[in-house]
Amino acid sequence: MLVDHIAPPYYAVIFSSLLSEDTEGYAETADRMEQLAKQQKGFLGIESARSEIGITVSYWESLEAITAWKNNVAHSEVQKLGKEKWYQKYQLRICKIERAYGFEK
Amino acid sequence: MLVDHIAPPYYAVIFSSLLSEDTEGYAETADRMEQLAKQQKGFLGIESARSEIGITVSYWESLEAITAWKNNVAHSEVQKLGKEKWYQKYQLRICKIERAYGFEK
Repeated sequence: MLVDHIAPPYYAVIFSSLLSEDTEGYAETADRMEQLAKQQKGFLGIESARSEIGITVSYWESLEAITAWKNNVAHSEVQKLGKEKWYQKYQLRICKIERAYGFEK
Repeated sequence: MLVDHIAPPYYAVIFSSLLSEDTEGYAETADRMEQLAKQQKGFLGIESARSEIGITVSYWESLEAITAWKNNVAHSEVQKLGKEKWYQKYQLRICKIERAYGFEK
């Protein structure tokens, strides 16, 4: 699902990843983390796509909200499992959205 | 392909899209635009994934480089075609990358 227009400024986490061969439990856990993210204070939306690589962009009201989500206990456990098991490689980038526009037919 | 670590600050364009039913010529044009983007001044990298929605994130040295790419003549023509033909909906967000870290097995 696309996240509709939100008036800047706000923040995003761009998480780009390459999975390892062991993807057992990955999809279920990713879904569960998305549901949990949606319940966090300051959460604005999330977009995900996966083909050769996966890109998940989550949108947040503030850097504090991003830090709180990073340190969420259930999320921290899953981050550990991700490094041990599911991810061959990833890059995580935190950014401030300065301009945004959209188009709809 | 994942874009490897780049030391912040730098900029990104997050382009999230939902295609229409008419995708004729889309894949070839998207490839051609990616090749053209890579030749632009200030270009740093590009990541793309598509499943239900498509997410393309391109990385740039400056806002000026992003504006120049937006106004590139060949790119402008394709943007017009995209609205007329390929995209049902899209959101484009311009952001400043403030922190970045990665993991590799």
